[in-house]
Amino acid sequence: MNVQEHIDAFGTVDGELRIGGQPLSRLAARVGSTPFFAYDRGLLDARIDLLRGLLPSRVELSYAMKANPMPAIVQHLAQRVDRIDVASAGEMRHALDTGIRPDHVSFAGPGKTPAEIRQAVAAGIIVEVESSTELGRVVTAGDRLGVEPRVAIRVNPDFAVKGSGMRMGGGPQQFGIDSEQVPELLRSFAGGADVLGFHVFAGSQNLDAEIIAEAQRRTVDLVAQLAGSLPAPLRYLNLGGGFGIPYTERDARLDLEAVAENLERLVSGPIAEHFPEAGPVVELGRFLVGECGVYVTRVVDRKVSRGRTFLVVDGGLHHQLAASGNFGQAIRRNYPVALGNRLAIPADEEMSVVGCLCTPLDLLADGIPLPAGAAIDDLVVIFQQGAYGLTASPTAFLGHPAPAEVLV
Amino acid sequence: MNVQEHIDAFGTVDGELRIGGQPLSRLAARVGSTPFFAYDRGLLDARIDLLRGLLPSRVELSYAMKANPMPAIVQHLAQRVDRIDVASAGEMRHALDTGIRPDHVSFAGPGKTPAEIRQAVAAGIIVEVESSTELGRVVTAGDRLGVEPRVAIRVNPDFAVKGSGMRMGGGPQQFGIDSEQVPELLRSFAGGADVLGFHVFAGSQNLDAEIIAEAQRRTVDLVAQLAGSLPAPLRYLNLGGGFGIPYTERDARLDLEAVAENLERLVSGPIAEHFPEAGPVVELGRFLVGECGVYVTRVVDRKVSRGRTFLVVDGGLHHQLAASGNFGQAIRRNYPVALGNRLAIPADEEMSVVGCLCTPLDLLADGIPLPAGAAIDDLVVIFQQGAYGLTASPTAFLGHPAPAEVLV
Repeated sequence: MNVQEHIDAFGTVDGELRIGGQPLSRLAARVGSTPFFAYDRGLLDARIDLLRGLLPSRVELSYAMKANPMPAIVQHLAQRVDRIDVASAGEMRHALDTGIRPDHVSFAGPGKTPAEIRQAVAAGIIVEVESSTELGRVVTAGDRLGVEPRVAIRVNPDFAVKGSGMRMGGGPQQFGIDSEQVPELLRSFAGGADVLGFHVFAGSQNLDAEIIAEAQRRTVDLVAQLAGSLPAPLRYLNLGGGFGIPYTERDARLDLEAVAENLERLVSGPIAEHFPEAGPVVELGRFLVGECGVYVTRVVDRKVSRGRTFLVVDGGLHHQLAASGNFGQAIRRNYPVALGNRLAIPADEEMSVVGCLCTPLDLLADGIPLPAGAAIDDLVVIFQQGAYGLTASPTAFLGHPAPAEVLV
Repeated sequence: MNVQEHIDAFGTVDGELRIGGQPLSRLAARVGSTPFFAYDRGLLDARIDLLRGLLPSRVELSYAMKANPMPAIVQHLAQRVDRIDVASAGEMRHALDTGIRPDHVSFAGPGKTPAEIRQAVAAGIIVEVESSTELGRVVTAGDRLGVEPRVAIRVNPDFAVKGSGMRMGGGPQQFGIDSEQVPELLRSFAGGADVLGFHVFAGSQNLDAEIIAEAQRRTVDLVAQLAGSLPAPLRYLNLGGGFGIPYTERDARLDLEAVAENLERLVSGPIAEHFPEAGPVVELGRFLVGECGVYVTRVVDRKVSRGRTFLVVDGGLHHQLAASGNFGQAIRRNYPVALGNRLAIPADEEMSVVGCLCTPLDLLADGIPLPAGAAIDDLVVIFQQGAYGLTASPTAFLGHPAPAEVLV
């Protein structure tokens, strides 16, 4: 996807990017400082509508709030999704603050401490156990608290999803319990928790619908094999998510309709047949929120060094680790970037956008076309920043102030 | 350097790593929670003594506090170094809190805002200007505040240092003013600031003494050419630093004696001849503090997945971005890691150490030898964590609590 498509998704007004209905410069004035993150409520709702329109009605949507834990976003989405997935006791607190039913909150992650597990059991949320040790801790916590814990088994599948941005299943993994170990674990389970079902998650940031569809089919097959070992009928079937979003010009949009058609076949076929009590859960983080957000910085300097033009902005990799190419990428590629307050002017001069940090890693855009007149005080916008932006960045690096975040 | 050499640097007591004179488990009990960063005051002082013993007495040491801005460390070092370099107004505040003379504080960085420059001029610190725009802002701030600003020109040299971990000079750069532009800038300078001299910094994390020595020689040559354009005699000559520390087994220690000998020749030769009023400044961050610190985590789970043993610890890449291989490294290599409370037991079983985050990026050590009995509650230590550890990591990622930092 190219930059223009990202601009079009937000729309323009008076030659500026439109966010939450306002021209960018007006929004910047309202926020009062740069850099900042802005998330567009309308785009967020449109994304939910898109998913609800395409996915089978029996599919439940879970928001993996690790993608963006901003409390206003979590509150907004809690009204619109069915479930929230948390990755720590800290995230759990924010999820429960929304008033969501505790049994609609799940907690996954390979290193849950006994203290975190106790908090989760006390809250009544679903603990997705990643090892037999964790299952034991859940039972102990339930016993001491006098409550029956809700549990799901996170399964490390015996298949791997190819073409995924990050593989989290198949082969040896820190995530989940190897599928071949699950029947024995359940057979030897002496009770003390309500084991609701399974979570199988094969990988994240996948743009290939056929691979996602295949992972979902194999997940349903695998769970159909494992469910016989459960002490009660399966009531929780978390298929994971992994729906990717396009970050660079090379990336094409995920074919969501193809994913939905596959889910429809699974829901009306094997899921209806084997698991009448389980509305399958699709857990999405990045795909829900990633495209609704931008990161806005102000140009503080423009300089030419040995023939190359640099725009130096007041933000940087301390808020944009992924855009700088330092968060899991093997090769750095430019994220979509535009001069958000001058969209009517042709972008016809090659420039690099660098942050304010004193390190060469702080490169936000390497030789991209921008308007020749780009100048101090102009606003540089980086798109696709609704997920894994602020909290996935080293905000304390070099001691600059924290950026604002607004949901508009 | 291998792990044993790192253990030996700290020493052991009762079969445990010794930090600040105490066994690791005792220190962990004192801190009260894991994970934490611990910095050893004795190792910090020993590093200063090493430098003072080898470098010519005319060389001034500057601490680049971006490497570790923990206030206790900055306070400790402020008594032992000659200068502090800051990278933001936030860092400047902590530097000035030590009581250091403002004219012994320098402020470098490519994206200084007018507000930050005004703060620096009001404080009376040396602003290392990175562009003609910044020089203009300094003059304006001085004019409005009624003070004469202290300024140095940061120069982007016309040479590049090879073999540096990160190149920050030569070719087109966001850092400094191209050396060939400096004479014209100074000729056209109409006054309004005291231009003290120059800062030339060619690159960081260099382990090759000959390359550092060559960069220093070329820097002195370059400054000798540029100094004639200064309105007054040169009184500030910041040669940069770039002294590296060994992170992986492949890395050998920097030959500091060779660097010192080269500096001795420069100080007694061209520097004495051309710049009698400038004690050359060597600016070090990582080299001063990097080796004095460890990151300590507790094992929360041990699991075997398809033949591979994982120790899951309560820390992770949210505090250890560089150790996870996600901070500027092209290829991930293991940092030195040991089971800090069981050093007397042979490390003879291959394991991987992973953090508690729900992402495959959270890999702290990939297939390293550790004691076969490594178990829940043991303490996994990562060495070389005194610099670019906590503040260079995405601490808010997944909502876990902040780690403690102690200087012992």
